Amino acid sequence: MLIHSASQLLTIAGAPQRGADLGRLGIIPNGAVLIEGETIAAVGTSEELIQKYPHESSLDVNGRVVMPGLVDPHTHAIWAGDRSAEFEMRLQGKTYMEIMAAGGGIASTVRATRAAPLKVLLDETRQRLRRMFSYGTTTAEVKTGYGLHSAAELRILLALLELDAEGPLEIAATFLGAHAVAPEYLGKTDEYVDLICNTMLPLVQQWWSNHAPYHTLPFVDVFCEKGVFDLAQSRRILEEARRLNFPLKIHADEFENIGGAALAAELGAVSADHLVTTSAEDIRTLAHSNTVAVALPCTPFGLAETHYTPAREILAEGGLLAIASDLNPGTAWCESMQFAIALACRYLHLTPAQAIAAATINAAAAIGRSERIGSLEPGKQADVLILDIPDYRHLGYRFGTNLVQSVIKKGKFYPN
Amino acid sequence: MLIHSASQLLTIAGAPQRGADLGRLGIIPNGAVLIEGETIAAVGTSEELIQKYPHESSLDVNGRVVMPGLVDPHTHAIWAGDRSAEFEMRLQGKTYMEIMAAGGGIASTVRATRAAPLKVLLDETRQRLRRMFSYGTTTAEVKTGYGLHSAAELRILLALLELDAEGPLEIAATFLGAHAVAPEYLGKTDEYVDLICNTMLPLVQQWWSNHAPYHTLPFVDVFCEKGVFDLAQSRRILEEARRLNFPLKIHADEFENIGGAALAAELGAVSADHLVTTSAEDIRTLAHSNTVAVALPCTPFGLAETHYTPAREILAEGGLLAIASDLNPGTAWCESMQFAIALACRYLHLTPAQAIAAATINAAAAIGRSERIGSLEPGKQADVLILDIPDYRHLGYRFGTNLVQSVIKKGKFYPN
Repeated sequence: MLIHSASQLLTIAGAPQRGADLGRLGIIPNGAVLIEGETIAAVGTSEELIQKYPHESSLDVNGRVVMPGLVDPHTHAIWAGDRSAEFEMRLQGKTYMEIMAAGGGIASTVRATRAAPLKVLLDETRQRLRRMFSYGTTTAEVKTGYGLHSAAELRILLALLELDAEGPLEIAATFLGAHAVAPEYLGKTDEYVDLICNTMLPLVQQWWSNHAPYHTLPFVDVFCEKGVFDLAQSRRILEEARRLNFPLKIHADEFENIGGAALAAELGAVSADHLVTTSAEDIRTLAHSNTVAVALPCTPFGLAETHYTPAREILAEGGLLAIASDLNPGTAWCESMQFAIALACRYLHLTPAQAIAAATINAAAAIGRSERIGSLEPGKQADVLILDIPDYRHLGYRFGTNLVQSVIKKGKFYPN
Repeated sequence: MLIHSASQLLTIAGAPQRGADLGRLGIIPNGAVLIEGETIAAVGTSEELIQKYPHESSLDVNGRVVMPGLVDPHTHAIWAGDRSAEFEMRLQGKTYMEIMAAGGGIASTVRATRAAPLKVLLDETRQRLRRMFSYGTTTAEVKTGYGLHSAAELRILLALLELDAEGPLEIAATFLGAHAVAPEYLGKTDEYVDLICNTMLPLVQQWWSNHAPYHTLPFVDVFCEKGVFDLAQSRRILEEARRLNFPLKIHADEFENIGGAALAAELGAVSADHLVTTSAEDIRTLAHSNTVAVALPCTPFGLAETHYTPAREILAEGGLLAIASDLNPGTAWCESMQFAIALACRYLHLTPAQAIAAATINAAAAIGRSERIGSLEPGKQADVLILDIPDYRHLGYRFGTNLVQSVIKKGKFYPN
């Protein structure tokens, strides 16, 4: 299929974009892309490709923007239940402790997720994945972490494999047994860390090789934060995971800087995420590493906080910056990477071009898939968006709605 | 048609909601609504209505939330062109003056709107109205103000009448010749005010009675702001409009308090809108009047500003508070009142219930239509939303996406 007459075709070709290089969209005016099966066969101007492939079935997008599918590299999209009552309590001025006392917080989602029949967990999550897809996310990372014991965590991994196989949205799974201390281990964080290192990680490794031998191992992630897992505990988990050949991620510096970003760089994590309170020194360390810095602007927005990731500082140091939705039931129930882009323009001070690159090629790098997705280049997977806008800068400029007209995933067409 | 099995049916019955009364949603659990033709015939529990009307064709909404259509009481939805390039310049740190020098600002939209063939103006606006409708806005106020000379303003009014007649979204028109000083009158604001008072207002009045004798006169609005129309100029325009029997609105206190809110109360305006820098005294004056205070949270959000309407202070004084999108090409291209609700929860410190009432019955009051729309009560127009959520608080809690499953306008069904 030859898609042609795009006002702008954003190829975003080339490697993930570091520092000042971020925002190279490789725009082809009056652009076209040729898809063969699941793969991109050619990109160029509409004249070139129509002349070169005159017998292809063709789709005239009539001046719309065409770009690679959005990649969401940090979500907690799999859970059961909701926390709308807790949201209301927070607005009424209830404190975090009062909400916890009323059974709120991550613990409440853990209870609901553990209790939900597999079918319910799949159904509720599927609705979110479909919404993400219709808003243009063609690949998303999804974390476990609302199970917090071995069987519950494995059940979530199983659900993720099933949802990935169902498609159309592709899932990169992450094991986040270290999302919070399991309720059974309250006050005994070190024992829970023992459980993760000695039992869960080996179990996940073995389970995965039985259930998904065709996939690389999932990421292992830790919520490294004061009051959750401290630096030493995070290091123990990530070092053990690395020993078992898991690729690594980390939640770092969301509320306080306890050293998670530097740890990520030291251990060669694929990404370090949140990064709101990261120090200038840690920004430098991270920026000079191959670890992608993932900003999650929906989270401070969701909480009506005023501090966001210092994205410009990360870029000034030459870092690799991506953005993600952080979709989760507590702080950011938002399936739309378009909205993350709108926030990135306003609160991370990125241009639309920078935010778009951060949500495609760099987001792909944040899940280790930039060789296969994140740009429109011959040989890459045909994950393509047709947007109902005449100029790519409408992403960011406009907010709160869905600008995607159609999603193409692995060459298959899904109109909105 | 009998719509039944709503987890929550929000009737929002009764008068517009003042002060501490805001947020009375009149929730009927397992609710139902009976529609006859264009009108609501009954509301009650599903058991009651199914028993009472056993032969009605029925729709099982299966635990979804049912509520009145959203009303957007302040938009500039009719224009041609876009200002995405200006948005990018602003992000790159260009000043307002540099943007103006590059041809930006309201003047750029005035040029594009004047130059656009009527068909283009209608097509571009129709897309926005359809988007608003699919996000649940069943009635919207729409202002002129990108014409700024008599013929151009009348052409916009004509387009609004045409789009209103087309439906399904209903339009309450506002004449905003005083949106900015016309480019032909730069530096001669008083002369432009003369033109509005002596030529435009009588012309609009006469034109309207010829073209839309079946409608009440449109609102007349003024952008009362330092550097636009000062208090004396605003008063001249509004007093002349009142003399001609136009109902009144005002843009007040967006950037500086020059007295617009108090003027609105004094003149009996239907609404005073923006109200970011309103003083405590003016809040009191406004709150004790029948003028609705309309907060526009998408605008500070769009500009990444930190000051929002002091909504809680307005409520504490017993005021009538509504919210609107302010949809416009400069500061807030957002068609979604759901997003305005999400912002109202976070930045106006409203609960979801308060924000919903502010976006329905009180928003209807802000365009003088609360007798006909804004709640689900027998005799009112059948403007109804079916939301794909189990609890009304998901409005506000979730953000950046569309939670509306179907819109019913004057009894007619429009699935998303």
